[in-house]
Amino acid sequence: MNALRVFAHIVLQHGVLRYSSTTSNLGNSVRNKLKVSSKQLAKPQPIDILNNLCHEERLNRHVLTAHHEGVASHAKRRKSKSCGAAIAGKNIIFVAGLGGIGMDTCRQIVKRGPKNLLIFDRLDKPDYITELQKLNPKTKVAFYSYDVTVPLSKSKELLQEVFEKYETIDLLINGAGIMDDHQIEKTIAVNFTGTVNTTTAIMDFWDYRNDGPGGVIANICSVTAFYPNCQVPVYCASKAAVFSFTVSLALLAPVTGVTAYSINHSITRTTLGQNFNSWLDVGPCITEKLSDTPSQSTAQAAKSFVKAIEANKNGAIWKLEQGKLEEVKWTGFN
Amino acid sequence: MNALRVFAHIVLQHGVLRYSSTTSNLGNSVRNKLKVSSKQLAKPQPIDILNNLCHEERLNRHVLTAHHEGVASHAKRRKSKSCGAAIAGKNIIFVAGLGGIGMDTCRQIVKRGPKNLLIFDRLDKPDYITELQKLNPKTKVAFYSYDVTVPLSKSKELLQEVFEKYETIDLLINGAGIMDDHQIEKTIAVNFTGTVNTTTAIMDFWDYRNDGPGGVIANICSVTAFYPNCQVPVYCASKAAVFSFTVSLALLAPVTGVTAYSINHSITRTTLGQNFNSWLDVGPCITEKLSDTPSQSTAQAAKSFVKAIEANKNGAIWKLEQGKLEEVKWTGFN
Repeated sequence: MNALRVFAHIVLQHGVLRYSSTTSNLGNSVRNKLKVSSKQLAKPQPIDILNNLCHEERLNRHVLTAHHEGVASHAKRRKSKSCGAAIAGKNIIFVAGLGGIGMDTCRQIVKRGPKNLLIFDRLDKPDYITELQKLNPKTKVAFYSYDVTVPLSKSKELLQEVFEKYETIDLLINGAGIMDDHQIEKTIAVNFTGTVNTTTAIMDFWDYRNDGPGGVIANICSVTAFYPNCQVPVYCASKAAVFSFTVSLALLAPVTGVTAYSINHSITRTTLGQNFNSWLDVGPCITEKLSDTPSQSTAQAAKSFVKAIEANKNGAIWKLEQGKLEEVKWTGFN
Repeated sequence: MNALRVFAHIVLQHGVLRYSSTTSNLGNSVRNKLKVSSKQLAKPQPIDILNNLCHEERLNRHVLTAHHEGVASHAKRRKSKSCGAAIAGKNIIFVAGLGGIGMDTCRQIVKRGPKNLLIFDRLDKPDYITELQKLNPKTKVAFYSYDVTVPLSKSKELLQEVFEKYETIDLLINGAGIMDDHQIEKTIAVNFTGTVNTTTAIMDFWDYRNDGPGGVIANICSVTAFYPNCQVPVYCASKAAVFSFTVSLALLAPVTGVTAYSINHSITRTTLGQNFNSWLDVGPCITEKLSDTPSQSTAQAAKSFVKAIEANKNGAIWKLEQGKLEEVKWTGFN
């Protein structure tokens, strides 16, 4: 009886909220139709569904499904408006865009013609930027020095500068990651806190409730987020954290206007796995073993990555394995 | 073909490793039987299974099952040796033992007669310690000032002092947690990094490879570790991280001699949920809603908690909901 009442409430809420889950201009037109002012939208929207997530996990599946459907219907409408392009003509920020996975993905992104590709990275690699710029002269490629472990206020300052210059940003890709279980604090700061802070910072500019246009977040997680590799339990736990955070972001899309999905690579031949330290030295060097194990190149992974970006699906859990892209479903626990 | 070869390897390895997955005295007797010296055991044991966890998640299920069976067989033997007691006569550290869930659980623990209950907490509450001491004069209750956000070296110093005094510690309960998504860094430091560091610190004294006797870790996670409550995405992500870390610890038990399981509370009426901040104020105050939602008291949760401790099952995922204890299974993604 109680469960029924609760579910009815969710459906009702879904019916209301889905009208605010679009992005950019469509969001504004919907607001106009509903005669809801930006001021009204600016105050926090209550999310009653959350009680239920706590009290009975099963309900979460209904909620997640309901939200997916809601956002999917918007995605369809947005698609017909924007010809399905999630890269062409867009302004994109790629955090850690010059890393092993990042650089090959940037090559693929640039080929699809974004208006601006802004690479936020710790280390400046001018040759890489020049190479990307040459790949497509119509796209402007810019580098911004950014260490994801800086305080939230610093992330906001950099984004303020960027939004003043480019006015809109359509997609944020959070890709900073290290794998070194001898460095517990640093692993957590880069892989987890860095992603949360960068995301939190951009919400100032995107959140519907701040009169923002919405936006899209692609978080690079890992298949080890759901199937930990116990050689590097801290790394895997940090990825599980970012994965969970991404699930929450997707659930919040009807409130914030910001959609999110996770990019989960299986074994990919990057520099990350070449010289890593396992927790308390419990494991051998993975690189010696990797040669025998099916894996993918960063170039293969990059092609899957841009397909996922183009699919632009809120809440999607993308698995990138051996050159293939697959959307997997959360089945949780029973 | 490749999958078969890999799985055969796991089974073989399991056959070897399970003989080192016991704890304390039984571990030593097994070592003698195998004529393996402590020196030999001290060097890191390779874990070939881990390649496979990365390359194909399905294999992880086989590995996890295999390890569960291995440790379960030891648990049976240990049970017959120790009459199944995981609390009576033992030395137990409870991190955050004076919190909402902690204090009621300590009351239940003390009634079951551990030799020593060492409470590590940030705030000293002498009245609580006195109350616990009075509950069972045969158990010695001691308080140690401990903030889980101190550097790893400080955690090790405190444990050095404790191990010098008590010689053996049988069970470590990691229970420090805050819920305040306005404080991103602090939430992550307390809920995630604190548990990792405390665990890492005790491994110096427990790890088989350091000639230690093994031990048991109970990590307080949350049902929101697998079904996030998007009002508090940072809190949930930190719990997902500790949950993942616990899964890895359990997988590593055959190598380290340290078993682990997770304690996942559903809605429990504690001070934690009374005045929390949601991320970017996306949600309303949960306490107003909680009165309508099925929940459990900390006293009910405490009774379930001690049952889980007595079950002493490596890798178990315990769900504590509405006064009931249930072991749930990981089904992951498909």
